Amino acid sequence: MINEDMYALGAAPNKIREIFAYGLDRKAQIGDDKVFDLSIGNPSVPSPAIVDETIARLAKEGKGTMHAYSMSPGLVEARAAIAENLNKRFNQNYSAANLYLTAGASSAICIAIKAVVLPGEELIAITPYFPEYKTWASNAGAVTVEVPARTSDFQLDIPAIEAAITPKTAAIVINSPNNPVGSVYSDENLKQLADLLRAKNAELGRTIYLISDEPYRELVYDGLVPAWVPDLYEATFVCYSWSKSFSLPGERIGYLLVPNTMPDWQRVYTACSGAGRSLGYICDSVLFQKVVAECVDAPVEIEPYDRNRKILLDGLREIGYNVIEPQGAFYMWIEALEPDAEAFCEVCRQHELLLVPSNGFLTQGWTRVGYCCSEETIRGSLKAFKEVYDEYQAR
Amino acid sequence: MINEDMYALGAAPNKIREIFAYGLDRKAQIGDDKVFDLSIGNPSVPSPAIVDETIARLAKEGKGTMHAYSMSPGLVEARAAIAENLNKRFNQNYSAANLYLTAGASSAICIAIKAVVLPGEELIAITPYFPEYKTWASNAGAVTVEVPARTSDFQLDIPAIEAAITPKTAAIVINSPNNPVGSVYSDENLKQLADLLRAKNAELGRTIYLISDEPYRELVYDGLVPAWVPDLYEATFVCYSWSKSFSLPGERIGYLLVPNTMPDWQRVYTACSGAGRSLGYICDSVLFQKVVAECVDAPVEIEPYDRNRKILLDGLREIGYNVIEPQGAFYMWIEALEPDAEAFCEVCRQHELLLVPSNGFLTQGWTRVGYCCSEETIRGSLKAFKEVYDEYQAR
Repeated sequence: MINEDMYALGAAPNKIREIFAYGLDRKAQIGDDKVFDLSIGNPSVPSPAIVDETIARLAKEGKGTMHAYSMSPGLVEARAAIAENLNKRFNQNYSAANLYLTAGASSAICIAIKAVVLPGEELIAITPYFPEYKTWASNAGAVTVEVPARTSDFQLDIPAIEAAITPKTAAIVINSPNNPVGSVYSDENLKQLADLLRAKNAELGRTIYLISDEPYRELVYDGLVPAWVPDLYEATFVCYSWSKSFSLPGERIGYLLVPNTMPDWQRVYTACSGAGRSLGYICDSVLFQKVVAECVDAPVEIEPYDRNRKILLDGLREIGYNVIEPQGAFYMWIEALEPDAEAFCEVCRQHELLLVPSNGFLTQGWTRVGYCCSEETIRGSLKAFKEVYDEYQAR
Repeated sequence: MINEDMYALGAAPNKIREIFAYGLDRKAQIGDDKVFDLSIGNPSVPSPAIVDETIARLAKEGKGTMHAYSMSPGLVEARAAIAENLNKRFNQNYSAANLYLTAGASSAICIAIKAVVLPGEELIAITPYFPEYKTWASNAGAVTVEVPARTSDFQLDIPAIEAAITPKTAAIVINSPNNPVGSVYSDENLKQLADLLRAKNAELGRTIYLISDEPYRELVYDGLVPAWVPDLYEATFVCYSWSKSFSLPGERIGYLLVPNTMPDWQRVYTACSGAGRSLGYICDSVLFQKVVAECVDAPVEIEPYDRNRKILLDGLREIGYNVIEPQGAFYMWIEALEPDAEAFCEVCRQHELLLVPSNGFLTQGWTRVGYCCSEETIRGSLKAFKEVYDEYQAR
């Protein structure tokens, strides 16, 4: 007499969380420095000092009503501050009316899907991908159609996307900088996608929405600047979170942007408000709304991640691993040394090296290595990576 | 090409928020002390001092990982502290495993409905009620069946509930202390409901779940102690929030309790975890999880509400209004002076008195008066109530 789909979802093993829990236990057993947990995406860089200072100051100043409800889309002053930040950085003309504050990018994506993907319609997702996209499409009664990224460079495979579009395609979700691969889609690649979508819109007489999942936007290396996707394609939602840039993943603060360049944006925004209501959202934490309003211009520290990235990339290549060089986020995509990624990760585990098999991202034969940890852990892990490599060579 | 149901939901006027917004504008025009806004349920009592002190201290002590993800159900230490508090107060034997922390009671109810009400099944709600119950049932593909409370005392109308139960009834949602009426269901009334549900379960060969929405549990007057509903009926979910008791409505911190006395509670809990995932929840704010863990035993201040309650009740009865004496929460239910509650509230508005018509709670002919405001506002409002009464007498 319970919803068995929900039971199955609740009972489904969450690989990343399982490995993380194992890592905590194992560290308690043999010592923190003996276990190399590269499984989870919890940022290791502390939040900017101004964030915690602002929290403390707001709490100290706290008046009777400081924790009162905000309107569902969020405080106007917070949304206006975010719009101003985006306008400066990306030369736009957004206002509070384009922003709906959400409990991180996850809730923004979940809302956008429910607002524009109808029951029975299709959402295209690019493998490997964060598997909750599929869960949220299901909640909207929609089907997820998987299209692999190009295996050469993990950019969007435009002909494969073209082949996957049907009259039922309502939206496509992309994630750049990418979790789990670390790729950043090039301007050229995104322009090709935009051209394809415009042609398909004309052919099919509908609007295919682009949902751009961007919590890693600022975590890019070698001076790369990711394109502002709504500049390339009008019907783009931007889903953002301060989880990674401000190291606030547990606080759930982010936004859904419905740009004023999107066709019929006010109607779409209204549908997003309705979708938020249907999912039980009342408003995002007002304390963190106020924190973001004050701190939105604070710089994002990427140097520790970049240092880890270089050490790990050089080290793994020297050992002999096939690694995709990450351009952004804090994950590295490494080919498993046997076709069965889960078996490979089990061998790694025996060397106290905790990685996520690509099966968790609906792809075979790879592993995700998170380098959002200490430099010491990265350096230590390379010894374990070498042992694993030698073990496979000796087979 | 958008979800028109979501558009309609987003475009639907939210009476309470509209009145609240009007009140802010009007106060700016003619002065705070000239407008008597009794529309919204934003607590006027400040949060307990220990809450803001704890926020400030945690932020000051803040280490790199203090804002890291928690597991989806919440930090074990927070859930254990809440379980301990419930065990002490209600003589139970709960543990962290019975609790799933949520973004307030709203998200707890939304999750519970999705977990146990299947598409096409029915959820019974008692009018007048917080209208989002219906929205969340819709998200689960379910239908809401409305059963009026007894109009004499706004307790549960057991024969009417019995008549409404069908083989498709999956759950019933109750809210005591009640918004908008202020009634608290008596032990006897709840026992009758439990007996009815057990009989129906046996007759229909299923479990009808009871979803107990309890954000006002501590806001009760005259020494009243609301029953602990799972003691009376096994298949009860408790949905709680610190929005009202700790005046934290904007921070979205609450819980869903799946008691270990519920049949098959572990399977039900797992279905709730799945439902949370499907709705886009990742975890509740870890800062507020930690705050609640430390402050859960802090006393709840009700004296200012009780004082307002008495002044308002005596004043309104003296004028001649038909008022339901509230036993809990911070709302009073007043019969409109004409059958059309919206027209009555419009007359009140002309006297700078802002009330919510009962239509917003799917009932005709009454208004909700919130007394979670200053005593000064309550005293001022009585003059306006008198003017309105005299105007109707003169018609």
